[in-house]
Amino acid sequence: MKKVKVGIVGGSGYTGIELLRLLAQHPHAEIVTITGRKDAGTHVAKMFPSLRGRVDLVFEDPASAPLDQCDVVFFATPHGVAMSMAEELTSKGIKVIDLAADFRLKDKEVFKKWYKMGHKCPEILAKAVYGQPESMRDEMKNADVLGMAGCYPTTIELGLMPLLKLHKEVGDIVNLDVSIIADSKSGISGAGRKADISLNCAEFSDNFKAYGVAGHRHEPEMVQQLSLFAGETVPLTFIPHLLPNIRGIFSTIYVRLKERGMGIDYQALYEKAYAEEPFVDVLPEGSQPETRMVRGSNMVRIALYRKEPDLLVILVVEDNLVKGSAGQAVQAMNLVMGLPETEGLEQIALVP
Amino acid sequence: MKKVKVGIVGGSGYTGIELLRLLAQHPHAEIVTITGRKDAGTHVAKMFPSLRGRVDLVFEDPASAPLDQCDVVFFATPHGVAMSMAEELTSKGIKVIDLAADFRLKDKEVFKKWYKMGHKCPEILAKAVYGQPESMRDEMKNADVLGMAGCYPTTIELGLMPLLKLHKEVGDIVNLDVSIIADSKSGISGAGRKADISLNCAEFSDNFKAYGVAGHRHEPEMVQQLSLFAGETVPLTFIPHLLPNIRGIFSTIYVRLKERGMGIDYQALYEKAYAEEPFVDVLPEGSQPETRMVRGSNMVRIALYRKEPDLLVILVVEDNLVKGSAGQAVQAMNLVMGLPETEGLEQIALVP
Amino acid sequence: MKKVKVGIVGGSGYTGIELLRLLAQHPHAEIVTITGRKDAGTHVAKMFPSLRGRVDLVFEDPASAPLDQCDVVFFATPHGVAMSMAEELTSKGIKVIDLAADFRLKDKEVFKKWYKMGHKCPEILAKAVYGQPESMRDEMKNADVLGMAGCYPTTIELGLMPLLKLHKEVGDIVNLDVSIIADSKSGISGAGRKADISLNCAEFSDNFKAYGVAGHRHEPEMVQQLSLFAGETVPLTFIPHLLPNIRGIFSTIYVRLKERGMGIDYQALYEKAYAEEPFVDVLPEGSQPETRMVRGSNMVRIALYRKEPDLLVILVVEDNLVKGSAGQAVQAMNLVMGLPETEGLEQIALVP
Amino acid sequence: MKKVKVGIVGGSGYTGIELLRLLAQHPHAEIVTITGRKDAGTHVAKMFPSLRGRVDLVFEDPASAPLDQCDVVFFATPHGVAMSMAEELTSKGIKVIDLAADFRLKDKEVFKKWYKMGHKCPEILAKAVYGQPESMRDEMKNADVLGMAGCYPTTIELGLMPLLKLHKEVGDIVNLDVSIIADSKSGISGAGRKADISLNCAEFSDNFKAYGVAGHRHEPEMVQQLSLFAGETVPLTFIPHLLPNIRGIFSTIYVRLKERGMGIDYQALYEKAYAEEPFVDVLPEGSQPETRMVRGSNMVRIALYRKEPDLLVILVVEDNLVKGSAGQAVQAMNLVMGLPETEGLEQIALVP
Repeated sequence: MKKVKVGIVGGSGYTGIELLRLLAQHPHAEIVTITGRKDAGTHVAKMFPSLRGRVDLVFEDPASAPLDQCDVVFFATPHGVAMSMAEELTSKGIKVIDLAADFRLKDKEVFKKWYKMGHKCPEILAKAVYGQPESMRDEMKNADVLGMAGCYPTTIELGLMPLLKLHKEVGDIVNLDVSIIADSKSGISGAGRKADISLNCAEFSDNFKAYGVAGHRHEPEMVQQLSLFAGETVPLTFIPHLLPNIRGIFSTIYVRLKERGMGIDYQALYEKAYAEEPFVDVLPEGSQPETRMVRGSNMVRIALYRKEPDLLVILVVEDNLVKGSAGQAVQAMNLVMGLPETEGLEQIALVP
Repeated sequence: MKKVKVGIVGGSGYTGIELLRLLAQHPHAEIVTITGRKDAGTHVAKMFPSLRGRVDLVFEDPASAPLDQCDVVFFATPHGVAMSMAEELTSKGIKVIDLAADFRLKDKEVFKKWYKMGHKCPEILAKAVYGQPESMRDEMKNADVLGMAGCYPTTIELGLMPLLKLHKEVGDIVNLDVSIIADSKSGISGAGRKADISLNCAEFSDNFKAYGVAGHRHEPEMVQQLSLFAGETVPLTFIPHLLPNIRGIFSTIYVRLKERGMGIDYQALYEKAYAEEPFVDVLPEGSQPETRMVRGSNMVRIALYRKEPDLLVILVVEDNLVKGSAGQAVQAMNLVMGLPETEGLEQIALVP
Repeated sequence: MKKVKVGIVGGSGYTGIELLRLLAQHPHAEIVTITGRKDAGTHVAKMFPSLRGRVDLVFEDPASAPLDQCDVVFFATPHGVAMSMAEELTSKGIKVIDLAADFRLKDKEVFKKWYKMGHKCPEILAKAVYGQPESMRDEMKNADVLGMAGCYPTTIELGLMPLLKLHKEVGDIVNLDVSIIADSKSGISGAGRKADISLNCAEFSDNFKAYGVAGHRHEPEMVQQLSLFAGETVPLTFIPHLLPNIRGIFSTIYVRLKERGMGIDYQALYEKAYAEEPFVDVLPEGSQPETRMVRGSNMVRIALYRKEPDLLVILVVEDNLVKGSAGQAVQAMNLVMGLPETEGLEQIALVP
Repeated sequence: MKKVKVGIVGGSGYTGIELLRLLAQHPHAEIVTITGRKDAGTHVAKMFPSLRGRVDLVFEDPASAPLDQCDVVFFATPHGVAMSMAEELTSKGIKVIDLAADFRLKDKEVFKKWYKMGHKCPEILAKAVYGQPESMRDEMKNADVLGMAGCYPTTIELGLMPLLKLHKEVGDIVNLDVSIIADSKSGISGAGRKADISLNCAEFSDNFKAYGVAGHRHEPEMVQQLSLFAGETVPLTFIPHLLPNIRGIFSTIYVRLKERGMGIDYQALYEKAYAEEPFVDVLPEGSQPETRMVRGSNMVRIALYRKEPDLLVILVVEDNLVKGSAGQAVQAMNLVMGLPETEGLEQIALVP
């Protein structure tokens, strides 16, 4: 099988190094170029010695990098970059997979409100597909541009999809007069590879805090997808917190049920819904997920509890850098390039 | 001022060593005896070298320890122990301060249900006072037996007290048709000083998990107190999680408001309610508490958010071993012995 | 290629789960059976949920497990077990790879002194080969029984091999009148998967301590191998410490040089010595290794410093559970079964 | 007793907040002013919420801060600041206590070599005293300017003082033909409160590395003091490492003994030498120190081992921010102001 030629724009952050880790072990990918404006000329393995002997590339200036020789270009950049290059790349038949937010939100006004900039290529946005394979697989296969789901959204969307789809199908399952509450906790790598005093290890190890309580940019994306599942607007309260872990997201989701919803066997519903999914695992009844169950792997694991007749509690874990970011992006690449979906993504979680 | 003579029963756990740390620095306390059945004969400072030069005691057998020379006896034991010794001690005029659950629940049937044993001294239970100074100060001053509040309950009760008292006073503030949700996260010391494979550092560092999702023994205690505040039964959903921190509890509390409740300025309500409390700090609007803000100190810090018109989110942090246990117990001792309430409890949090 | 049939004796510890992680991803291995006396009947994936969907085995009683259907049997047991089963297995042509200490020490008196038990199969011990591929590759290929190198020894032996071999070859390089000092620091998983109060996360996170200062069982093994390299007895002072990390060993080695030894270019010597080794990386001059550079991978990375004319400082990192244990054992299996040595061992370190 | 009026220059780093924590609890200190150029106008408790209710000060511009109303001024600044202000302050009779390196090194050429700047007040330097109470108590009492010992040096100097003084007194104890080796490990707070990518929690938690292997600025200070103890030049090899802990230094020191030195009972020597020291604890024979034994306290704890006849291994722990910095500076203030030396420094280590 011919190898997929891959480019990475903005490779010096955590999603960048995670893409490198996964793609360097992928049997059918060849990394052609990786860019890093500030780091142009630096050996990748000098910055990331864990890649010594495995990645023999130099960060290139994005202006001169041979992106046009690629089949797929990943953007592991802040928002605003992918949208400025997507048109040129897609015009050459190159697939664009953006790990940031440029192509997640269908409504460009919502984008503007949360990201404080106008969208630069609304026509491409209109055709772009939200990159979350378990919910958008068919649409993704033929897309030219993918706006990959965020890390928190992946846990919350997969945690709610079977329930909300049932709600859409039969009606009157979930009480949407009150918001669904998602209390999420993320490892510190989710904050990015940056010099920031609040991320200093002396500040953050042995600590735990909430952040973005007043509003977090992942909210509109989640409302968009959850509403799509439910067939009506889903009100969501999302409170993110930071864990002194390197990797891992744990979302505890609280859903109020309507009377009809109280009679459902959710364990069975979820097991059936995800039976064929290689990367979603519904744990046996009574299980309590832990973030380390997925550390370094592309898995999402889900447990379900009925604390009260009208309350379903859904616990979801993922590795924010794999299924929450780079791993899901490689899964997307496999889909758009016609490779087996699990290829290069079979790492088992690192325990202990 | 004469020193208070203190005994500690069961001093080899984390609440025990924390009592020792606080009492050894207390200007008006003298530790007369400390017991440890298994460790009888062992020097306290041999087991806990951090106390070398500061605590010159040997663990004594509870049967022969001179507890009757004490003014106050703390029980830092598992439940079931304090209730077997309370009658004898109180008959001699000795105050009993139990850090476990023997005297928390007023209803002995509820105790039996959750703790799987009958109560051994229901008459004493009837007179015992729940040990949570900010809510029960006056009752505590004259009590002979105190059942100290649990670690999680302290955060959730203090987080909700002003709101529920207002609800009781004026009515129709909180929507109690749906449960209040408390999503709590605790440092690992809350699980106790024990050899347990799931607490092994290789299992638990860089990890995060829920536990006790199906039911946790702190629930009935919280419902009892919250209902007392509200003047009616308060339904509560409590989901505890374990953090890879040594110390610290962070509770994120979600309360649905009724229409009348939507018009209240909660920031002002809480600031006023706790204005005179030395150990409860209402943070300025927009603050995001962190567990390290209280590490090693007896403080509780609270922040309030209105995410939606009908939803109040309350964030509370404490050190589970200080305000959540040993510190609050020393505060109780100060109260019952007529000492200034803050004595021996003025340690500032250890940051970083 | 036919798959190698593998058995694992004693699979419920950290070396056991790490063998499972590696072998489940190995393209030419098939795990036939895994034993666990206490856990017989338990699903492996129930104990280790990270293996759900990847390992579909039940722990079997060692007495009834079909070990005789295997080509290779790994012992991930405490010392004393492999030696009691090696004779029977080897008599059936089955290769034995012991991750514990039964076959590391050539002198059975030394074994007895350090392990407080007589050796049960001295004839097999006489033929057994020390399992450290970079130093013993040829001998290992034809061995029936391998006593795999310990975690600390692998770092210290690989850190010293080129130097000591030069000393043997040309003489008068290292001053062996004084001991070589190895100051080693290990992640907590090196202490094993056990319930032990000193390993409790509240005891050990945010902590650092020495242990085994008076004597550690890895000493005789290291002296044996280092002396083999040097052609004379090598005195060694070994001080191990415990890090609050899950994985990773960092050894800082101090070697006094003789006058002739002061003139050598050690950077060049080591680069040449390890040029063809897939799992040993000599870092560029001036590098400072970090344990995370090898987390989850089978790599050893080495840096060299000359602090003073007569002092060579060698810094070595490895993942104690991979190159220090299960990974090196799989490398050994590849060797004895004629597979490519790197097969199943190409995981890149997990960073961050 | 009248309170000592205290000023702090440069209060926004970790030594600054630790001075605030200790001084706010000190019974005879009053913090008059704290400066912070960049943070002038900011409430101290806004930057450090752990001090809410305890420190009611605003960072002042150093140019306008009322330092001349102080009895003592602490410098918690980078090197170069104290030397530019010391002359003016001392001319007004104000004591200067510098926590940085401006007054540690007696030889201004050595200072220039390691700190890349000329010394600005060599006359004051000539009269300044090295601030390490256990070794310089008498000199410190009458000093106007103190150059406080560094964090690593405090462990290594106290670890070696009794031995080297004996060497000076009777001769031929330590073999100084080879360097003393100090393998030190420090918690991350030692690197300072700064935004630096290598200190990001995702980079540094669950990691361990050496740094400054080629040379660290604390070396000349240690050689100066050790040589003073020994009465001759002491060669030292110092290799620092970074631990993923917030606080704590652990130094493992290796000393080669001469024949006469092999006959000494070092346990007795050290116990006698430190018998009257409130902040130095010689642990019983066979003890293994842990950093948490001193977390948050001003104690140093020491253990001694004879691994071989000619080798003494000395293990020392301290909290780098207390005895290694702010605590020792408060101890110095007590000395120069005639207060009891332990005042305000009796915090017991926080365990767990």
